[in-house]
Formats: sequence, structure tokens, C-alpha cells
Amino acid sequence: MDVAASSAQPSAVPPQRPGEDALTALVSLLQGDLEACNHTIVARMDSPVTLIPQLAAHIVAAGGKRLRPLLTLACSRMCGYQGQRHVKLAACVEFIHTATLLHDDVVDESLLRRGMASANAVFGNQASVLVGDFLFARAFQLMVEDGSLTVLGILSRAAATIAEGEVLQLVTQNDLSTPEWRYLDVITGKTAALFAAACEVGAVVADRPESEASALAEFGLNLGIAFQLVDDALDYSADQAVLGKTVGDDFREGKITLPVLLAYQAGDAADQGFWRRTIETSEQSDEDLDQALDLIARSNAIRLTLDRARGFAAKAKRALDPFPETTLRQALLDVTEYTVNRMR
Amino acid sequence: MDVAASSAQPSAVPPQRPGEDALTALVSLLQGDLEACNHTIVARMDSPVTLIPQLAAHIVAAGGKRLRPLLTLACSRMCGYQGQRHVKLAACVEFIHTATLLHDDVVDESLLRRGMASANAVFGNQASVLVGDFLFARAFQLMVEDGSLTVLGILSRAAATIAEGEVLQLVTQNDLSTPEWRYLDVITGKTAALFAAACEVGAVVADRPESEASALAEFGLNLGIAFQLVDDALDYSADQAVLGKTVGDDFREGKITLPVLLAYQAGDAADQGFWRRTIETSEQSDEDLDQALDLIARSNAIRLTLDRARGFAAKAKRALDPFPETTLRQALLDVTEYTVNRMR
Repeated sequence: MDVAASSAQPSAVPPQRPGEDALTALVSLLQGDLEACNHTIVARMDSPVTLIPQLAAHIVAAGGKRLRPLLTLACSRMCGYQGQRHVKLAACVEFIHTATLLHDDVVDESLLRRGMASANAVFGNQASVLVGDFLFARAFQLMVEDGSLTVLGILSRAAATIAEGEVLQLVTQNDLSTPEWRYLDVITGKTAALFAAACEVGAVVADRPESEASALAEFGLNLGIAFQLVDDALDYSADQAVLGKTVGDDFREGKITLPVLLAYQAGDAADQGFWRRTIETSEQSDEDLDQALDLIARSNAIRLTLDRARGFAAKAKRALDPFPETTLRQALLDVTEYTVNRMR
Repeated sequence: MDVAASSAQPSAVPPQRPGEDALTALVSLLQGDLEACNHTIVARMDSPVTLIPQLAAHIVAAGGKRLRPLLTLACSRMCGYQGQRHVKLAACVEFIHTATLLHDDVVDESLLRRGMASANAVFGNQASVLVGDFLFARAFQLMVEDGSLTVLGILSRAAATIAEGEVLQLVTQNDLSTPEWRYLDVITGKTAALFAAACEVGAVVADRPESEASALAEFGLNLGIAFQLVDDALDYSADQAVLGKTVGDDFREGKITLPVLLAYQAGDAADQGFWRRTIETSEQSDEDLDQALDLIARSNAIRLTLDRARGFAAKAKRALDPFPETTLRQALLDVTEYTVNRMR
């Protein structure tokens, strides 16, 4: 690679992994805001009941990408906001996300989260449920301190929608007859609703018109759907094994995701029997994952899933059309591209 | 009993069960409000994800006493409120309470609630966790519709305090060295904080001064502590068996409550060994409950617990001193008396 060419394009990334550095670029544009947000997160998850900050630190420090609070920070600044309210609201968004993760891991009986022991594996299901409740309540306390009923309306609606999406996922679990639109309802609720709210809040703190708030909600919603579709594809991607990531978590949990639905629909009677046994009745042997990966590869389910994801990502990008061409807008476009091209 | 004397006192109750009818009296004073509240509860727990209203109906219809929303309705009216905002806020209070019950039963692995199969026993832990989250979020949506940041502040703080109390209970579980003050912290958080908030909200909707809001919070807090102490005493009361109620649920769950702490502290070495085995290491045989009841009876732990409850009830009543002597104020005083004299 030409070093000179590379240094001339600060956001350039190796062509094999388009957009890989986009998240890093966004983070460096918002460094101060993100540090303030992380500070708020740590300060406000505190409680005299010491198990609460201990357990919260386990998951917060486990270091997700902070993608959702970054969206709040970025959208606020892109809308020209000059104050500091967005820092607290980004922390709210992360608290709601963290509460959801804690409850998710209990519901899924997951023992791992981002390659580390999950909070429920370390502290037990009981503490995970209750600390999730605490973080959820604390998120609302932070919003009340902020004082915007519009923001409270956006995030309380998102919280209800997340719960609906999670229940819908539970209801469709192991059900191979789930139509694609219903699966999209699930991920719209469980993932995209918070992305949408995180972005919409940016226009509200910046006091921008309703049309811009809606555009940012539309951006976040489609980005969130794309993000979840890619997550679901990566879980069956053999490349993940190369990167040292676990593959097949969703398969072992009998979770219905788009790659499985597409492979099932494309399969012959024997293939469908395989999926019914492994997903619907959860009878799995050690070799079944290999066969699942093989069936998914043969049906092009990963490529088709990523195609769908790219469609939603394109829709997300178009939603940013009304905004002036700033560095932050470009960074959000790049992150959207990164989302559908990421390897993990 | 002199019938003439009795009819001269509309709120008089048979002397054997002082205050037993006080709750019924309060309900009849607030009949219209309570019906409107029940209507709001049913209407607003609805969702296109049908498992949500199904599961919510199971616990809401199981018919608790609706004590907490009644407190919101009663305090609002006692403060002279003439509108309808209190109906929605009472429903919020019940939603937060219901969400807590759902999560409690998962945490305690309880299979019964009010003598019926618990929601987690019927629908599973996963659905109970998620529908609890939904009801909690829905409560905040209702508050946002109401539009008072003061109310949102009171109830979001209460929600965080409830979670802290529940985590503290988890941490002190099975620990016989728990001091009484710490046990009081637990029940203040897990029970009394919502009673306090439910009452305080009444002064806020009626636009009464801060001093009255504080007085109502003080009333609710002490009533809530008294209520929980009596609940804990009743769990070891042999009279309950006569009434066909289960006795010893807390004992079987190894739960630390004041009757156990007092009996443990009053016991000799052999008694303390018994408590350590049954509560701390949870090794119990079928005969152990009888011995527990016997040790509690010998140490006067029930009477002492009820004495404490009466102290808090007296404090609750004094908190109503600043309010004019109305029928509703008297009804709240009677309910407080009922709380410490109830048999179930």
C-alpha cells in the first residue's frame, strides 16, 4: 500500500476491509464527548448497594463499541448542538442498552458476552435481573434531570418497543415457519428501536425541526436493522472462526435468524428435517454446526442476508440527505458502510 | 355489640378484627376512580404482541388489593384534586408494582403468587422478565403523557430505590448476622419507597405545597414499612393456616425477615444452630417448619415484629396531622390501622 496515498486520506482503510476504521474515526471526532459520557456512565451507575456498581462495571467495562451513545453524541453535534446535555442522554441510551443486555443474557441463558463470562454467569441470574432494573430506572432519572419531555417520550417509547421485540423473539423462537417480515419486526424492536431513539434525541437537544428528528430516527432505524442482520450473518460466518470468534451461538440457542430462515426455505425435505431437528426440537450433536454452516453456504443465505443489510444501510444513508455535508455527516455515512462490511 | 352505637359510626368494625373493613371502606369512597384506574390498566397493558397482555392479565387479574394505586387516588382526592390525571398515575404505580412482582417471582423462583400459579410458573421466567420490562417502560410512557417532570422524578427515583432494595435483599439473603437496621433498609427500598411515591404523587397532581408532598411521602413510607413487617410476621403466623393460607414460604426460601432475626438473636446455641442449618445452608426437612414456628413463638418474635409495625403505623398516622379532618383522611387512618391488624 502506498503510504503517501494513505496519509492523504485520513479515513482511508485497507480495501479488503472497507470502512473498518470508520468507527475509530467517529470516536476520534467525538473523543471529548465520549470521555465525558464514559465518566457519566461510571459516576451514575454508582449505588450504596455495592453489588450494583460491581455487576454494572463487569458489563460496562467489558467494553462494547459504545455505538448507541456515539450515535447520540454524533447526531447532536451534526445538528449543531453546542452544549453538554447530549452527554447525559448518551449515557441514558447506554444504560437502557446495558439493562437490555443483562436481561437478554438471563433470558437466553448465555454464559458468554463479547467473549467474556456474562454477568449472569459471574453474579447469577437474580442479580442480573435486578441490576438491569436499576440501570433502567437510573436511565429515567437521568432523563428527568435533563428535563425534556420530548426526550423522555422518545426513550420511554423505545424501551417499550424493545421489550415488545424481545417478547416477540421469544414467541417466534424455534419456529421455522416465521415469515421474514415477522423476523424483521423482531429485530426492529429488539435492536433498531434504540438506534432510532439514540439518533432522534440528537435533533431534539439541538432544537432542530421535527423533520430532522424524523430523518435521524429513520437513519437510526435502518442502521439498526442493518447492524442486526450483519450480526446474525456473522454468527454463521466461517471467517469468524479465523478471527478467533465463536461461531454458531445462535444455532446452539435454537435462535431463528434470517440466515436460518433463508436456508430452511431453500432446503429440500432432508435439509428441512435437519433444521427442524436442530432448531425446533433443539436436538443437536457436535457435528450439526458443520452441517448447518454447509447448508447455509449452499443456500447463499449469508450473501442474501448481507444483501438485505446493504439495502437497509442504503436507506439509512439516504435519510442523511437533508443534512449539510459536514465531517460528522460523512463519519456517520462511513460508520453505516462499516456496519455492513465489518468482520466482527 | 350495640347496633345503635355501631350505626352511629359508619367506619366502625367488629372489635376482634379492628380495621378489617377499612380497605373496603376506602374502595367504596373511590369506586369511580378505581374503576377508571382498572380500565386504564387493562387498556394500557395491551400490545400487538399478544403474550404481553396475556401474561400481564394473569398477574393483574389475579387481583391484588390495588393498595398502591388506591393510595394515589386517595391522596389526590384528600388534597382536593378535582381532575382525572390521578387515574393514569395510579395505573403507573400499579404497573411499576406489577413489574416488580414479575421480576421478584423470577428472582425468588416462586411458583405461587396470592395462592395461584405465578406468571413465571405458567409462562416461564423469560416471558416474566421481558413483560416486566414492558410494564415498566409503559409506566414511564403514561407518566410522559401526564407531562409532570415532578411526578416523573418521584417515580423514577422510587423505581431505582426499589431495585436497590431488591439487590440488598439478595445480598443479605441467608445471612443471619444481618442487623435489624439493614433489614429495615431492605424493606424500605423494596416495599416502602413505592408506597411513599404513590402517596406523594397525590399532592403533586393537586398542586399542593412541598410540605404536604413531604408529609404524604412520610405517611406512605411508614405505612409501607408497617405493611411489610406485618407481611413478614403473617408468614410465620399459625393463624394463617386456619385461614387456609400457606405458612412458611419465607422460611422455605431461606429469606431473612425480622421474625427470624429476632428468634435467632433470642435463641440459645442449639436454636441458633437450627437457624443456621435451615436458613443459611438451606438444609430443611419437613418437620423443620414446625420447629421454626415453635422457636418464633417462644421468642415472642411475632409480637415484637408487630410492635415494630405498630410504631411505624403510628408514625404514618401522625404524618397526616397537617391535613384537614375529611372522610378520606379518616379512611387513610383506618387503612393504616387495618394494615397492622389484618389477618392476611
